[in-house]
Amino acid sequence: MTATTAIAPSAATIEAIKQKAKRLSILSMMSTTAAGSGHPTSCMSAAELVAGTFFYAMKFDPKNPNSPDGDRFVLSKGHAAPVLYAALAEAGVFPESRLMTLREFSSELEGHPTPRIPGVDAATGSLGQGLSVGSGLAIGARMDKNPTRVYVLMGDGEMAEGQVWEAAAFAARYKLDNLTVLADVNALGQSEPTMYRHDMEIYRKKFDSEGWATEIIDGHDVAAVLAALDHAKAISGQPQAILARTIKGHGVSFLAGKEHWHGKPIPKDQLAAAIKEIGPAIDLPPDPGKSYARTSLPKPPNFPPPAPPDYDPSKPVATREAYGFALKRLGAVNPHIVAISGDVKNSTFSEIFEDAFPDHFYQGYIAEQNIVSAGVGLAARGKVPFLDTFACFMARAYDQVRMAAISRSNINLCGSHCGVSIGEDGPSQMALEDIAIFRAVHSSTVLYPSDAISAERLTEVMAGRPGINYLRTSRPKFPIVYPKDEKFPIPGFKVLRQSPQDQVTVIGAGVTLHEALKAADQLRAEGTAVRVIDLYCVKPIDGKELAKEIAATGGRLVTVEDHWAEGGIGEAVLSALAQASVAPAKSQLIAVREMPHSGKPDELVDAFGISARHIVEAVRAIL
Amino acid sequence: MTATTAIAPSAATIEAIKQKAKRLSILSMMSTTAAGSGHPTSCMSAAELVAGTFFYAMKFDPKNPNSPDGDRFVLSKGHAAPVLYAALAEAGVFPESRLMTLREFSSELEGHPTPRIPGVDAATGSLGQGLSVGSGLAIGARMDKNPTRVYVLMGDGEMAEGQVWEAAAFAARYKLDNLTVLADVNALGQSEPTMYRHDMEIYRKKFDSEGWATEIIDGHDVAAVLAALDHAKAISGQPQAILARTIKGHGVSFLAGKEHWHGKPIPKDQLAAAIKEIGPAIDLPPDPGKSYARTSLPKPPNFPPPAPPDYDPSKPVATREAYGFALKRLGAVNPHIVAISGDVKNSTFSEIFEDAFPDHFYQGYIAEQNIVSAGVGLAARGKVPFLDTFACFMARAYDQVRMAAISRSNINLCGSHCGVSIGEDGPSQMALEDIAIFRAVHSSTVLYPSDAISAERLTEVMAGRPGINYLRTSRPKFPIVYPKDEKFPIPGFKVLRQSPQDQVTVIGAGVTLHEALKAADQLRAEGTAVRVIDLYCVKPIDGKELAKEIAATGGRLVTVEDHWAEGGIGEAVLSALAQASVAPAKSQLIAVREMPHSGKPDELVDAFGISARHIVEAVRAIL
Repeated sequence: MTATTAIAPSAATIEAIKQKAKRLSILSMMSTTAAGSGHPTSCMSAAELVAGTFFYAMKFDPKNPNSPDGDRFVLSKGHAAPVLYAALAEAGVFPESRLMTLREFSSELEGHPTPRIPGVDAATGSLGQGLSVGSGLAIGARMDKNPTRVYVLMGDGEMAEGQVWEAAAFAARYKLDNLTVLADVNALGQSEPTMYRHDMEIYRKKFDSEGWATEIIDGHDVAAVLAALDHAKAISGQPQAILARTIKGHGVSFLAGKEHWHGKPIPKDQLAAAIKEIGPAIDLPPDPGKSYARTSLPKPPNFPPPAPPDYDPSKPVATREAYGFALKRLGAVNPHIVAISGDVKNSTFSEIFEDAFPDHFYQGYIAEQNIVSAGVGLAARGKVPFLDTFACFMARAYDQVRMAAISRSNINLCGSHCGVSIGEDGPSQMALEDIAIFRAVHSSTVLYPSDAISAERLTEVMAGRPGINYLRTSRPKFPIVYPKDEKFPIPGFKVLRQSPQDQVTVIGAGVTLHEALKAADQLRAEGTAVRVIDLYCVKPIDGKELAKEIAATGGRLVTVEDHWAEGGIGEAVLSALAQASVAPAKSQLIAVREMPHSGKPDELVDAFGISARHIVEAVRAIL
Repeated sequence: MTATTAIAPSAATIEAIKQKAKRLSILSMMSTTAAGSGHPTSCMSAAELVAGTFFYAMKFDPKNPNSPDGDRFVLSKGHAAPVLYAALAEAGVFPESRLMTLREFSSELEGHPTPRIPGVDAATGSLGQGLSVGSGLAIGARMDKNPTRVYVLMGDGEMAEGQVWEAAAFAARYKLDNLTVLADVNALGQSEPTMYRHDMEIYRKKFDSEGWATEIIDGHDVAAVLAALDHAKAISGQPQAILARTIKGHGVSFLAGKEHWHGKPIPKDQLAAAIKEIGPAIDLPPDPGKSYARTSLPKPPNFPPPAPPDYDPSKPVATREAYGFALKRLGAVNPHIVAISGDVKNSTFSEIFEDAFPDHFYQGYIAEQNIVSAGVGLAARGKVPFLDTFACFMARAYDQVRMAAISRSNINLCGSHCGVSIGEDGPSQMALEDIAIFRAVHSSTVLYPSDAISAERLTEVMAGRPGINYLRTSRPKFPIVYPKDEKFPIPGFKVLRQSPQDQVTVIGAGVTLHEALKAADQLRAEGTAVRVIDLYCVKPIDGKELAKEIAATGGRLVTVEDHWAEGGIGEAVLSALAQASVAPAKSQLIAVREMPHSGKPDELVDAFGISARHIVEAVRAIL
């Protein structure tokens, strides 16, 4: 990293930070020993880095530690939570006595950071995600023309995660010079030494190859830490990596650099000796006080209603294309919207939004993990991220979606090209599990439009809805089903065919809704009336409302979906009915049950068992 | 890359490979135009690389193209399938006329490669996975003391995927000098130019930083391609990367280096002109002939029965620990077993296997994506991979598991630390979605043992069972439930409490089975008999057999699981019953429904609604 003309910190400042670092180490040991579990040695390697960052480099208001007007800190190595909590306490966010509740049932100070804790923007603990979150925070700050900085503390073990290098490339691509990584290279993983141990030059080469400014320091030399933090602030046009050689368990002779101490608290009878080696000891009042848990978390900002969608009702349109038009309409009224695409904007149609609002669009390249976690960072700054790729590749970022839910994040994901109805590209491009995996995310909403109007309206709904919102769009063009002012409440469904003579309820969505409508027409011609329901909202489902429809058709139910049977629409419906204490008298769950292959969309929809013909057969089977 | 003393290829050889490359380009254009979809320009950038690899460097038997005694080729950029198929046809694996069936319903030549195609070991098409697969193949060859080589063709767009760099680090760590990457750097992604365009030095720096031997060439200069392939063979102790500057759509003036041609076939009326620019034209017979689809895919090798497990029935044991003991017992009788752990071998207990069979254990570090895809490579060579990490981090490799299923791979995954019962570490470390996601994988088996004996026996079952096998293990110690010679068929379940007076069937697994047994004891004391079932196999389920049990208890059902409600045990049971045309008269599905936090295991099991107390309440509610 280039040397700068910044005034060097005074000896008194250096001494003060040294003392802070000692306190952070001691508090990390004390709190984990009190908890009986945790990772003190992983905290001790980072104590000087954290002390220097919090008490020398960062500017933030401890009374309002999540304010977007303060510098942000992301603890990517989430298992070092106690050192972060200690720093927050030392900064005055909450009293130090609170640290002794670490990991208790009633405490906000969880084993790994979550946004329940003041000062934390995103949950960490699944390694290798923090730099992506930090990139999103840094982009958000830049969009806000806010001069704050973002610091990300990473471990060396987690740099084996590919996502770290996706994020490093992304941050350099967008020249995020308001972003600084502190790499705590303590050379020991959980189970054995890391791949590169203390070979600092390898880490330098890796960050250098991505276009970062780098500096290698002794991470326990406070003067070096502060100088590197100064150097980083002076860099423009590049993100900066401070690569710190550290010792796990630093400061305590029986821990320092020793294997087999990962994730182990210091036994009570050794704690005093350990503290004495670092000293001076810290006395804390016995009463830990009340919870400081954050009571309100960011919600998507309000926005005025956009212009209505407009389509020629006679012309079929793909729901994936409608998504792009909806984003553009939203962009005109909601300045917080940001879109990131995984090099598929011309397939998912987020390019329509990019063309209209190029400053609100980011090319995420083929790096889905980074895209989702960067979205979490953006959302933590109050942005409304819309993240897109093919629905099947959402699987690539599923751990990141899982962590987004633990982060109580508000992100919107659009997965296009669902199911066998994509046709010729074959099974690697067909999402047949996306409903299952997004349903199994806490706070998720799973939307599956069947025409352009519902796709547009549901995209509008997502922009204002908290939590993890997933929109499943389709490749084929579908006929327009709804008038342009139709409303789509959550939860909800639409009854598209009904009569007092209905004998079976058929539930579909997307391509299978259109197959169900065909089947209904054919059955009607044969004298059998069926009720057809568009389950545009697959999660949540109002089981009581749905049960009324099924009851009205003699308790007979057919579900049909372009998805595996497991975790899909059929199971979602059965589960919602069970929650409403109802069981269908007779049911047929039609889904894809064999591994598909290439072919034309219509051929595949029929060959893999989800076409009108199969719906007709299923209805007949339960009459 | 170091120059070598290999004899340079003759001018005649170079000319012959040039002609092969032209044929590959032309056949790629012809087949995609015939199909009406596909990615000809992505094939044309790679034509010389593929021709040089197949017809100069590789040794393999076209009559037995999947033989482990031949060199292996992995097309990581799976959308360039037509150029691979053309090379296989030119090599004599099947007739060229067959290429004209590309992407047809009845053809084995799918839009992206799958192992239905002779010569293909693993499905590709989700980008960035091929190098990991290749690493697994290369490790397998080395374990077999087989001198064959592995070639992986990658695109530049896919090098944005972090998994590529996980694999690069892994291959260098294990000094896989039998592994060569050909990087087709054509500078154009799907939607716009790649991040680094033609900056070849960046790619060199990236591979160099990982410890690879590198060489930059003009990818359309056949002499340079062949020389680089020779150089690569001469390198020892390092994997090699041939970084080839190429032009997308090379050879045809209106395609070469042009944007907006990605994934588009050449229109029929422009095809002749395009072919003429490369020439000479190729005539193919009109009859494409019969399918050459592989009829048999690798199955796990047979092995003699291992020694039985042995436990003191009075001492509780964690199922995660039993997994380690089982692997060790298996290793003694099955030389094909290989274990890879994501730096958690001391938590998942694969270290027990490592201690016994260090040459069959690989440290995968914190890089779950690479671990799973490397497992696919190992399985393609007939190994029996067991891959482990915390169950929650299996989510990190879900796309790789999805692709493993499309690869018809036989891999075994063990996820430890499931559910809220892990306790203090908090939600980032709790798998609450793993049953849902593994159920939604084609060919998967989902196993969830409740004691050490079943954990051991189910691990044995996995070693011999085709497909994607997932074992969910738990952190707490559980009492021994079964005698050591108990059998655990797939599908299957165990009835642990039953009497003619049973009024409700309670189904649990893992920690909730033990809670269900407690609940049954308490209810019995109150005069209510319930049937308790251990659903050790969550997928597949024999719905008819299970329906008999539920029918015997008046159609009353309670399921209870340490997992989200969505896609878990409750829905699996309802779905299996629906498939058997049965619906429970009354049911209660108990699952985790709120975001958990830190606390003691028992506190959390109770607070999040899945303890004996809640089971008792649920039973009472439906009596």
